[in-house]
Amino acid sequence: MNLIDGNKISAEVKDEIALEVTRMKERGEKVPHLAALIVGHDGASETYVGNKEKACKQVGFDSTVIRFEESVTEKEILEKVNEFNNNPSIDGFIIQLPLPKHISEQKVIEAIDPRKDVDGFHPINLGRMVIGLPAYVSATPAGIIELFKRYKIETSGKNVVVIGRSNIVGKPISILLSQKASPGDATVTLTHSRTKNLKEVVSRADIVIAALGNPEFLTADMVKDGAVVIDVGITRVKSEKTKSGWKLIGDVKFDEVSQKASFITPVPGGVGLMTIVSLLQNTLKAAKGEIYPKK
Amino acid sequence: MNLIDGNKISAEVKDEIALEVTRMKERGEKVPHLAALIVGHDGASETYVGNKEKACKQVGFDSTVIRFEESVTEKEILEKVNEFNNNPSIDGFIIQLPLPKHISEQKVIEAIDPRKDVDGFHPINLGRMVIGLPAYVSATPAGIIELFKRYKIETSGKNVVVIGRSNIVGKPISILLSQKASPGDATVTLTHSRTKNLKEVVSRADIVIAALGNPEFLTADMVKDGAVVIDVGITRVKSEKTKSGWKLIGDVKFDEVSQKASFITPVPGGVGLMTIVSLLQNTLKAAKGEIYPKK
Repeated sequence: MNLIDGNKISAEVKDEIALEVTRMKERGEKVPHLAALIVGHDGASETYVGNKEKACKQVGFDSTVIRFEESVTEKEILEKVNEFNNNPSIDGFIIQLPLPKHISEQKVIEAIDPRKDVDGFHPINLGRMVIGLPAYVSATPAGIIELFKRYKIETSGKNVVVIGRSNIVGKPISILLSQKASPGDATVTLTHSRTKNLKEVVSRADIVIAALGNPEFLTADMVKDGAVVIDVGITRVKSEKTKSGWKLIGDVKFDEVSQKASFITPVPGGVGLMTIVSLLQNTLKAAKGEIYPKK
Repeated sequence: MNLIDGNKISAEVKDEIALEVTRMKERGEKVPHLAALIVGHDGASETYVGNKEKACKQVGFDSTVIRFEESVTEKEILEKVNEFNNNPSIDGFIIQLPLPKHISEQKVIEAIDPRKDVDGFHPINLGRMVIGLPAYVSATPAGIIELFKRYKIETSGKNVVVIGRSNIVGKPISILLSQKASPGDATVTLTHSRTKNLKEVVSRADIVIAALGNPEFLTADMVKDGAVVIDVGITRVKSEKTKSGWKLIGDVKFDEVSQKASFITPVPGGVGLMTIVSLLQNTLKAAKGEIYPKK
């Protein structure tokens, strides 16, 4: 069994980005600038935005965080989005979800200039990805692709089974791995709650991507010997063994599945760490005009 | 074996649309208006646009066709698209593809107001479809979904295998049938030229959708007893048996596969006839503001 080490790869990619930023500075270019908008005081959101700021600092990006109280109106959010859209110093920005219920997330997402949509949530970026055009790909699927690249995991002609059809993981990773691309060119089956013969389907997979959000769902008896197993699930559960009183559990029963897998991502320390790295990569692409030409 | 009769269903749907148009007229509402832009004198394109005009007449839609010579510039096309976008009498319009090589099809498609993009080719409509938001779905996948509805073919929990990963058929029908919807909720495998064990994968399918454009590719030995077989291929081949000197052949070896299938679409007379019907349905939706609210 080979461990796919998210710690190692995310550090590697960050180092590469930091080097690129140093070079940009040396050439007298503006450094990439990522902005984030956060509403309210949700703990997980605060942590995530805090990690983004920290990661920006690590690689030398400029970073801006705008905070609103829960009482903010949709109009105020849309005005801020418009301001970000028109601020030439900001290369890319994200709206930390979820937003309070009185604000339409979809309306806010569609108000983002697709050229600055480094989360890849705007339908135009999703649509461009489906067609195979340059597009911002959302963080988790982009992170999985990066791991395949770094570990030279062959996907062409492989049977891939994705478990879970969410808009931000299951659907986009299925589409990406089906594309004429490398990584890609896989035969992908997308499974979900209505799939009848899941165990049988999964047992044929060369590569399994578990993204259903059900702790330790994937057990050894479901997986074929030598399969590559990617665990996207992150569920926080109470634990008496940790100082904090809780621990993170993935969708894969790691102890037993790791006995059969050729490659496997742990939780924590796997895919989760790649999401912020993907966001940094998208922001770098935005700054360099790699997806959309600069105005 | 039950024949899925595209002639019958397309006539049925057209009758329903015509009835709806009559009612709209009675209520003093504007009738739906479909416009088309065609460049050059390609035979297939002329036929297709001619059929669209005819279908519009049959159901009582207004129809406009704008023709340009091959020498037209991209700028002139984009100006016409802009004119269509801003013409309140036009509910939806299509750009007949292919365009001459000196014109960027993608640029033209992205210039279409997504609210009038009844071909469903704009990335924003594709992206909205992936997310599960209201969107114009392109003609062939929408036509297949309509056939499933009309023949009450159950897709929930079924194993669907799609052969061919084109942007206008294979990818969107895979996405649609995976969605939490009815028809939908299927376990979909998207196969293509890099799929290694195609025969084995297809033999497990409850529903096979052949959309690779390879005449008579799907043979009886590949299909399981009782499978539903949808043939999207249309290849024109020479024939001494027809007056015209040519005939249309699908991707399915009909004579033998029909012996095993529970339901099957013929070529011609199957899916192909549904494409224009889908376009009429999208135009009706545009006129009624069902996908995007009217301005």
